[in-house]
Amino acid sequence: MHPYRTHSCSALRAGDAGSTVRLSGWVHSKRDHGGLLFIDLRDETGITQIVIPAGSPVLEQAESIRAESVVTVTGEVVEREAGTRNAELATGDIELRAREFTVQSAAAVLPFQVAGHENYPEDLRLRYRYIDLRRDSVHRNMLLRARVIQSMRKRMTGLGFVELQTPILTASSPEGARDFLVPARMHPGKFYALPQAPQQFKQLAMVAGFDRYFQIAPCFRDEASRADRSPGEFYQLDFEMAFATQDEIFAVVEDVMSGLFSEFSNGRTVSQAPFERIPYARAMKVYGSDKPDLRNPLLISDVTEAFAESGFGLFARIAADKGEIRAIPAPGAGDKPRGFFDKLNNWARENGAGGLGYITFTEEGGKGPIAKNLEADRVEAIRTQLGLKSGDAVFFAAGKGDDVAKFSGLVRTRIAEELDLIEKNAFRFCWITDFPMYELNEETGRIDFSHNPFSMPQGGLEALNTQDPLTINAYQYDIVCNGIELSSGAVRNHLPEVMIRAFEIAGYPESEVEARFGGMLNAFRYGAPPHGGSAPGVDRIVMMLADEPNIREVILFPLNQQGEDLMMNAPAPTTPERLKELSLTINPPKPKVKTDSDKA
Amino acid sequence: MHPYRTHSCSALRAGDAGSTVRLSGWVHSKRDHGGLLFIDLRDETGITQIVIPAGSPVLEQAESIRAESVVTVTGEVVEREAGTRNAELATGDIELRAREFTVQSAAAVLPFQVAGHENYPEDLRLRYRYIDLRRDSVHRNMLLRARVIQSMRKRMTGLGFVELQTPILTASSPEGARDFLVPARMHPGKFYALPQAPQQFKQLAMVAGFDRYFQIAPCFRDEASRADRSPGEFYQLDFEMAFATQDEIFAVVEDVMSGLFSEFSNGRTVSQAPFERIPYARAMKVYGSDKPDLRNPLLISDVTEAFAESGFGLFARIAADKGEIRAIPAPGAGDKPRGFFDKLNNWARENGAGGLGYITFTEEGGKGPIAKNLEADRVEAIRTQLGLKSGDAVFFAAGKGDDVAKFSGLVRTRIAEELDLIEKNAFRFCWITDFPMYELNEETGRIDFSHNPFSMPQGGLEALNTQDPLTINAYQYDIVCNGIELSSGAVRNHLPEVMIRAFEIAGYPESEVEARFGGMLNAFRYGAPPHGGSAPGVDRIVMMLADEPNIREVILFPLNQQGEDLMMNAPAPTTPERLKELSLTINPPKPKVKTDSDKA
Repeated sequence: MHPYRTHSCSALRAGDAGSTVRLSGWVHSKRDHGGLLFIDLRDETGITQIVIPAGSPVLEQAESIRAESVVTVTGEVVEREAGTRNAELATGDIELRAREFTVQSAAAVLPFQVAGHENYPEDLRLRYRYIDLRRDSVHRNMLLRARVIQSMRKRMTGLGFVELQTPILTASSPEGARDFLVPARMHPGKFYALPQAPQQFKQLAMVAGFDRYFQIAPCFRDEASRADRSPGEFYQLDFEMAFATQDEIFAVVEDVMSGLFSEFSNGRTVSQAPFERIPYARAMKVYGSDKPDLRNPLLISDVTEAFAESGFGLFARIAADKGEIRAIPAPGAGDKPRGFFDKLNNWARENGAGGLGYITFTEEGGKGPIAKNLEADRVEAIRTQLGLKSGDAVFFAAGKGDDVAKFSGLVRTRIAEELDLIEKNAFRFCWITDFPMYELNEETGRIDFSHNPFSMPQGGLEALNTQDPLTINAYQYDIVCNGIELSSGAVRNHLPEVMIRAFEIAGYPESEVEARFGGMLNAFRYGAPPHGGSAPGVDRIVMMLADEPNIREVILFPLNQQGEDLMMNAPAPTTPERLKELSLTINPPKPKVKTDSDKA
Repeated sequence: MHPYRTHSCSALRAGDAGSTVRLSGWVHSKRDHGGLLFIDLRDETGITQIVIPAGSPVLEQAESIRAESVVTVTGEVVEREAGTRNAELATGDIELRAREFTVQSAAAVLPFQVAGHENYPEDLRLRYRYIDLRRDSVHRNMLLRARVIQSMRKRMTGLGFVELQTPILTASSPEGARDFLVPARMHPGKFYALPQAPQQFKQLAMVAGFDRYFQIAPCFRDEASRADRSPGEFYQLDFEMAFATQDEIFAVVEDVMSGLFSEFSNGRTVSQAPFERIPYARAMKVYGSDKPDLRNPLLISDVTEAFAESGFGLFARIAADKGEIRAIPAPGAGDKPRGFFDKLNNWARENGAGGLGYITFTEEGGKGPIAKNLEADRVEAIRTQLGLKSGDAVFFAAGKGDDVAKFSGLVRTRIAEELDLIEKNAFRFCWITDFPMYELNEETGRIDFSHNPFSMPQGGLEALNTQDPLTINAYQYDIVCNGIELSSGAVRNHLPEVMIRAFEIAGYPESEVEARFGGMLNAFRYGAPPHGGSAPGVDRIVMMLADEPNIREVILFPLNQQGEDLMMNAPAPTTPERLKELSLTINPPKPKVKTDSDKA
């Protein structure tokens, strides 16, 4: 007989009654029923009830063992009596009558319970992550993550993508964030960097003649932690395609994402291809965001016209001063009590707006402070423009440029939440396309890149040479799901002369471009195919599929929010010998007044 | 029509003649045939011949473009005339008559050629790796690597293993080698370490209740480069199993390795399961190595008995002094000229031996210097013991302990090479088992761990408490293929009290064990299953399957032997601002006399 187990803890059925078996697992729980001891024995697959009869020679040992000890139990499978069967357990028709009972590993007093669903402080859970991971929901998250990644690989491979491993000890990358540096022992004073993303390497793979590359790629950013961003490392489904148009890149993402989300939807609705494509400019107007949540049915309208030179002086003046008035419909809100509108008005003030104007519609027409002053035909024009009816309401955001766009986006979300209009159990995807190549830096008055400087400008070199830079869009896009950006992406700029001109517009002389990005620029001088790609975030996708609000719930051994591994004690001081080998001296920052929240 | 291609460069056949198509790719080669220009256009899938007729409006542009430029060609598929077909090319029955010719990316003068099979210096190849990777053999190695890893994943998943991602920013690990350290900006004076292997994390995953874990795991060692070891990073097929016996672990490796190697054997023979299991002690005796190459049919014999108190004084004295005489058969070498034996004798002296004694066998009996002095019945006893016949020879290695074992292993290899006895086109696997837990440190006279201190000693706590430590074996094993160690592995020690006692024997007080390995030790106190695993080297496996002698031939963007990325310029100096953020000062080593080989 196998020394540990003949079956898993989920395998036995009524048909096995009478056979002698051996199980191993963790003592999930113990119950003493008048001398009779019941143990729920758990392994990764499930639970089997062990029964140790009164008078059994192993009773004393079994009674003394703590929950979460690892034991091996040998005995006879017995069919349970009718009234004691457990329909919720796959093995609920049987129990194992213990004859032998071997402790493989005795557990000390636990810092928290594995059985049950109690919440514990995150730092405690992470310090004892090996216990935390035994808990059902966390354990299932990790298995889900494994299956999601496996499915990603299968889907990408099925589409002809080849998984290549790009370097992890590499050069500093020109992404926006901060690199982790690794001192190079053999090269005193020099450092490797961990990749923020394999961006340059995947583009070099295209130059190297690989047609379709992908990688479940570990990425590293020395950035502060957030609920949806793990400190230190994260994974992305990094991919790149040669000779591909933006539409082909979209088709790949749509195929993979709609397939993947459908596979793990668990009854939730998933957008099917093609996903809605929303140019950046329209997204800002209609959704007040470049990450619109399409589960929210509300669309923002521009009603500046209706207020221009109108009787409602505040908005008329804003319109006259090149501002805009945006209207956010609130279907069914017309009957809400005054308190509803006051609450929203206060919320708007807390968010930096002057207030939140509104009109409610009744059979008699528009009501409320704005409607009092606004001409009736203009009120009616707004009602018609937004397709509202009696019993509905409309809210207004007024201001200039991005400010009014973003605030109206906040209002759109808030109204939909208040009215419970957000579609439930759905994954709604869209593309945001045509991001502007440049933006005006209001502080310096200079022209900056809006997003990735390595994207191909629409119109190419000619556009760069002839158009107002602020009117040039890039082949730059985001894939968004439920208001969460899963990834940026772009058709890349593979032409050195276009890249140098693009940087020149943003104020970088050619010499600096050569110095900073010479590796990739040089590569493009030896025959580079047109190419593009994207890199959806793996952790974030798993988080959405697992319906977890915190990314650490889908990572096996995450660092805590301070970037510490409390279980393994990292980061940690090193020895003077190691520092000498690395030609480094520690030069601690000047002491400052410590506060409670100061972990340094 | 697609802006870049309607077909790949390997797609077109005679049946496509007459259709208008578009191809994109690299100009592999150009040939001018009296005004008629031929271009071999290459993409990842293959090559299509483009023909540009004399007088074509695109001829001038096509003529002027350099090899390795990226172009898009549109035109008509034409069936080639009978005499000009190329049976070696999938598209050899057709050519594409160019009507439009668009340069997507013009290539500068190349540092080396892509077409052809010339050898170039490695540093030049790595500096322009994106060009080097276009070359057929290197490119195919990368695609092979991708398929090998994909097959590993499929096989492991098929066996119920779940792929989990363990941390890359972690604590220093207790493996033998040197860690790479990563300064923790938010924790001045502290460092993360990159994992030398996910050893501790995979064991913690077992404690966390995962039953079968695997990972294609990136690992990092700050060690010197070798032909079979890349500096910096490498990948291993890391796996671990709970409640598993050594035999079950072996069965997994045998299933995966024999399947994998068969899948990519390309006609080579592969050992099928079960692989031969050779205890360490026997391997050292019979193969003179713990990494025996089973393609070599020669077996070493202990012939000490035959020389003890014999007429051959040198060996008799060694035997009397507790030394051993090992015999290495050389079938068919009896007829070799004197020069053959002299050459081997010199080789032995160069390798630190006193020489290489031998006996040749003729119909009349043993010949040569040893046979002259050794009694005829003893010569005959040796011949019988080794199963030799007239026309064969035998070589002798004499000395003590590991020295004679290892030297006889060298002789075994050398003789087999000289006689061309090593099986060709075969992958021969074996297990080396039962490694000793401890060894005597000859210098200090103390007892050290032989291998992994975390392996379970055979006999457990009782053996540790009652046996001579030097007689205790561990559940520690190696998987070896063709004389190359693919991985160590072990059934782990999951019992804190056994681990503390095991370390005590090796001279580590409990306090030090707790301080250094507290993370894992603590975990074992909360219910740990018996577990074990292994971690075959991915790069090394691909290297064997690709039949490449250098590991950098199977890595996409490897560091060079000095640990530099010449393409991206890593490692590199950082800025004073970054150093300050990291609380570090560079403290260069004292200058020393530079030599040519000194790259620091």
